Amino acid sequence: MTIDQIPVILGGIGLVVAFIIYRIILSYSAGSGKVVEIGEEIHKGAMTFMRREYSILFTFAAFVVAAIWISDLGSRTAIAFIIGALCSSGAGYIGMYTATRANVRTTTAASEKGAGAALNVAFFGGSIMGLTVAAMGLLGLGVLYLMYGRDPATANVIHGFGMGASTVALFSRVGGGIFTKSADVGADLVGKIEAGIPEDDPRNPGVIADNVGDNVGDVAGMGSDIFESYCGSIIATIAIAATLSPAVIEHLGAKQTLMFLPLGLASVGIVCSILGIILVKVFSAKAPATALRIGTFSAAVLFIIAAYFVIQALAVSNGVWVAVLTGAVGGIVIGLVTEYYTGGPPVRKIAKDGETGPATVMISGLATGMQSVVVPVLSIAAIIFFANHFADLYGVGIAAVGMLATVGITMAIDAYGPVADNAGGIAEMAELGEDVRKITDGLDEVGNTTAAIGKGFAIGAAALAALAIITAFLAEVSAHGSGKIILDLSNPNVLIGLFIGGIFPFIVASMTMTAVGDAAFDMIKEIRRQFKEIPGLLEGTAKPDTVRCVDIATTAALKRMIPPGLLAVIAPVVVGFGFGAETLGGMLGGALLVCVLMALMMANAGGAWDNAKKYVEKGNLGGKGSDTHTAVVVGDTVGDPFKDTSGPSMNILINVMAIVSLVIAPLL
Amino acid sequence: MTIDQIPVILGGIGLVVAFIIYRIILSYSAGSGKVVEIGEEIHKGAMTFMRREYSILFTFAAFVVAAIWISDLGSRTAIAFIIGALCSSGAGYIGMYTATRANVRTTTAASEKGAGAALNVAFFGGSIMGLTVAAMGLLGLGVLYLMYGRDPATANVIHGFGMGASTVALFSRVGGGIFTKSADVGADLVGKIEAGIPEDDPRNPGVIADNVGDNVGDVAGMGSDIFESYCGSIIATIAIAATLSPAVIEHLGAKQTLMFLPLGLASVGIVCSILGIILVKVFSAKAPATALRIGTFSAAVLFIIAAYFVIQALAVSNGVWVAVLTGAVGGIVIGLVTEYYTGGPPVRKIAKDGETGPATVMISGLATGMQSVVVPVLSIAAIIFFANHFADLYGVGIAAVGMLATVGITMAIDAYGPVADNAGGIAEMAELGEDVRKITDGLDEVGNTTAAIGKGFAIGAAALAALAIITAFLAEVSAHGSGKIILDLSNPNVLIGLFIGGIFPFIVASMTMTAVGDAAFDMIKEIRRQFKEIPGLLEGTAKPDTVRCVDIATTAALKRMIPPGLLAVIAPVVVGFGFGAETLGGMLGGALLVCVLMALMMANAGGAWDNAKKYVEKGNLGGKGSDTHTAVVVGDTVGDPFKDTSGPSMNILINVMAIVSLVIAPLL
Repeated sequence: MTIDQIPVILGGIGLVVAFIIYRIILSYSAGSGKVVEIGEEIHKGAMTFMRREYSILFTFAAFVVAAIWISDLGSRTAIAFIIGALCSSGAGYIGMYTATRANVRTTTAASEKGAGAALNVAFFGGSIMGLTVAAMGLLGLGVLYLMYGRDPATANVIHGFGMGASTVALFSRVGGGIFTKSADVGADLVGKIEAGIPEDDPRNPGVIADNVGDNVGDVAGMGSDIFESYCGSIIATIAIAATLSPAVIEHLGAKQTLMFLPLGLASVGIVCSILGIILVKVFSAKAPATALRIGTFSAAVLFIIAAYFVIQALAVSNGVWVAVLTGAVGGIVIGLVTEYYTGGPPVRKIAKDGETGPATVMISGLATGMQSVVVPVLSIAAIIFFANHFADLYGVGIAAVGMLATVGITMAIDAYGPVADNAGGIAEMAELGEDVRKITDGLDEVGNTTAAIGKGFAIGAAALAALAIITAFLAEVSAHGSGKIILDLSNPNVLIGLFIGGIFPFIVASMTMTAVGDAAFDMIKEIRRQFKEIPGLLEGTAKPDTVRCVDIATTAALKRMIPPGLLAVIAPVVVGFGFGAETLGGMLGGALLVCVLMALMMANAGGAWDNAKKYVEKGNLGGKGSDTHTAVVVGDTVGDPFKDTSGPSMNILINVMAIVSLVIAPLL
Repeated sequence: MTIDQIPVILGGIGLVVAFIIYRIILSYSAGSGKVVEIGEEIHKGAMTFMRREYSILFTFAAFVVAAIWISDLGSRTAIAFIIGALCSSGAGYIGMYTATRANVRTTTAASEKGAGAALNVAFFGGSIMGLTVAAMGLLGLGVLYLMYGRDPATANVIHGFGMGASTVALFSRVGGGIFTKSADVGADLVGKIEAGIPEDDPRNPGVIADNVGDNVGDVAGMGSDIFESYCGSIIATIAIAATLSPAVIEHLGAKQTLMFLPLGLASVGIVCSILGIILVKVFSAKAPATALRIGTFSAAVLFIIAAYFVIQALAVSNGVWVAVLTGAVGGIVIGLVTEYYTGGPPVRKIAKDGETGPATVMISGLATGMQSVVVPVLSIAAIIFFANHFADLYGVGIAAVGMLATVGITMAIDAYGPVADNAGGIAEMAELGEDVRKITDGLDEVGNTTAAIGKGFAIGAAALAALAIITAFLAEVSAHGSGKIILDLSNPNVLIGLFIGGIFPFIVASMTMTAVGDAAFDMIKEIRRQFKEIPGLLEGTAKPDTVRCVDIATTAALKRMIPPGLLAVIAPVVVGFGFGAETLGGMLGGALLVCVLMALMMANAGGAWDNAKKYVEKGNLGGKGSDTHTAVVVGDTVGDPFKDTSGPSMNILINVMAIVSLVIAPLL
């Protein structure tokens, strides 16, 4: 065994561990009667969405593959694209398949065995998504690295993998985001407000779609998002290493080693993640928040220590380790800031502003979101500064890898949230006792906080990954494209690119917000129709047609994910070939900046509105039914597409544009 | 008389024409009784605000002057700063002084002489602001040009003028914006919603403050904003010309001529503006919208033609004329797009979305705002491209001058809006007949449309002016600072600057939105107190304490304008001296991009919400009092600080940061 084979082996081990966890989940009872029935409905709805989504996706991918194949990039890049797309969609499919098996078992565990067991199942459910993302990334990239990556002359074949992964991520995130929020908003508006029935009430025809949405949006969508950043940062670092100048090489370590290092660190990361997952299980008797926190922080600390020894062993400069450190620490800082803005004093301020009506809730939520960008963006700037200072441009790539290496556990915790949320929904719909719902509510609440942190982390990671890819793009144009380019802002071509780049985040945010509104409107019409036309529905004597609602959300999401998806893939090609590499570089710079700002603003404003509503619903400021509550509900409804559709789309948008640029770089 | 003296002479003539118009306005009757009384209250309130604002401003300016004086920039730059600050504040003072004389005379003319006379007075009221802005700019810059500007070695003294003007603009725009919206929101919330009395009802204690706000925000604030862009573009173009390379000089024309050209074009512009103003008067028997449009377009066309002959006569390349043309046409395109988004189908869509509540109004308004950036930003990119192609970097500056040269009439039409609005308010408060109010309503409606176009134009002009100043900054650093710098985005120092720059628009938007919310809250408390504690107020037997409300809005605005103001002035100094010229350049690039996007988004979303509310109030979709109306009122309330406080702050923010950078450039 050579050292180069380790990533593939650890990728394989990761999948095996994920499979073992899956068997453990299945060993828990799925329950009986209504619980199983509802669980099956959610599972089927989610799987149907995935299959329909993937069939559109594969059609689109087929065109892209054909275009790459017949271009000068050739068949190898096209095949790498296919592998990337398959790894990403495979990870999403496995993650969601198991999450929709874990949700119902969490409910049953809560009902039969108590809080500790329920936490175990829910977290295991999320862990499979986390481990599969990491393992599929290592496996796919590891194999391609063995085939082409070790030779700087063919290393750029691997970029195709990133583009494949990004294309899947784009559609999964945008489509999933539209699905989940249109179902959520539609079900809430008609159910809670018009029909006056509680959330997750089994009489509501949209409630299954709402629960399906949690899975397609927050499990599969989030998974593909993180997968893309994870692979993107590794690919970019390999590309940067492959084109490093001899002077820098001499300073940092052997070129071959530097090219391998991102995969090596990711391999260490998956081991640390598995250890972290085991720690959560060990501490599952403690409060859920504590157990999850012990797992994540231990994994991060272990990783940083292990990375030090790996870097020493590979005879790489200590400066590279400092870059890893800045990335890992930066990710934590960004996560904690997110937690503050979506859970701290700003949330209570927004709720308080609800006393003067929805307008003041909107203003203070937007102001909070805007303010929340400051520390994360300064953190990114600091990471760039230190990573560069200690390890040149290579440092930026390796910092992104450092931030994402323990993705196995961070993604596990992200995906745990929707499993716990679903478990609560199933308990409510199956009308289980209040003690069961208390357990699932507790798990859900922790899930909401971790989800907020996870979103902040995902944005930071995506930003850094995109930056690394853009750096790789510039290196690639210089090495294999039209030659050395300088992105001088006073060059009109670059400046025009900068302005054009700034437009895309605004268009895509506008498109996705409108899509949620339109799709929610379709849902509202259907739910209203069912309440009117199905006799006995509100009385609970007839069953709603939940399948029809899932179908409507699916169709709406799939139709509306296409325009933003096409825009993201085609824009770099048009600008690159139409205006040249300089304008394209400027465009990526502008898009990166605005995407990061908008992603943070939207995610944090949305999270803050969400929790302001929850704060009032806990009985503060008049509680449920008060005018203040009505006001904060408006904030939450606007916040839904902000935080779960448009905001997350920004991460993908910049990464897709960057990776497409990287792929076409040799042709520019 | 040499050609260099023409700007000073035409500046003087502009002031004389403004004074003649002032005499004409005074020749109209101010009316009698309540009308005069209310007019006097508004006038006094506005003047009190101005005096208190300027006293804070001058204190702040004194520190800046001292800092410049003792720095290596020396006394001449400090004196230029003082002249710039005096010209800007003088223009604002004169404009507002006469606007608050014209408003009451418009009401009386509407009541005694009919629509044509009312249009004349209102437009003349605005014209004084327009002409004074142009004339003060020409006069101040013309004199400094004669003293220092003709010599490339001392030309940078003039930058101090721009910084003085920008500092005044910053406080006027931000302070005025906070004042106007806190008064508006406060008066509306308590008056219309809680007390159930109509807008501009004399019983409402906040109503005078609301009318004062229109003047301090939309007359003085807007005037100083445009003044800054106008002078900024001229100064930047002189600076670019002063540092042009011999190769470019040879291609475009003599250096001395190119340095004079922006002043020359502005001189032509003021003549065309005066002709345009006369045309509006000639066609005042037509519908107001038609008369105003004839005036603006004629002035623009005349200017473009005259500019051609001036450029020919000065033996400057025709390419420079093309740059003038792109700027002038670009400004019109941006204005028309603004008109579409704030008056066309998007407005009806937002109103329609009001049927499903305030949340959908918010979502579709934000989506509209985001979408509205596309064409204006592409227009700016196109201007950059063509101006550069035909006249190198000099072209960008001259395009900005081309866009702003007819500022005399565009600003006149902007300032006409609040005069007409005030006239309507006075008619309502003085309880004049319905036929009077119909005339003033007609004038006001036209004013709203022109205000929207004016805002779009102001953003485009500010963006281009800022870009020209940034270009001048780079040239200045190369010529008199640390030497040639390249703003290479792959240089970490530049990239960090880019990220840092992107933060400021978000912080300032957040600060100003929060300021409006807080200040409005103070107003609400005071108005509620008066309704509770003054017996007979609601019955109309007692008078409200309107002075107290004006005072509260004044204090709140002045207190809250300071933090964003300090931030904008200090940030470039800290980043420039702390991190160097490259990081500062990157910061300006990032701030420019994000400021333009946010300014457009906020102005257009706000305008669209405003008109959606008006659309419903005209009786559509259920009309006043319907649930749809309640929903669109929420949109309007959020839109108020968007379009009149935070959005316009973006224009100033980037220009202040750019001009401060230009001033300190030789020290970096």
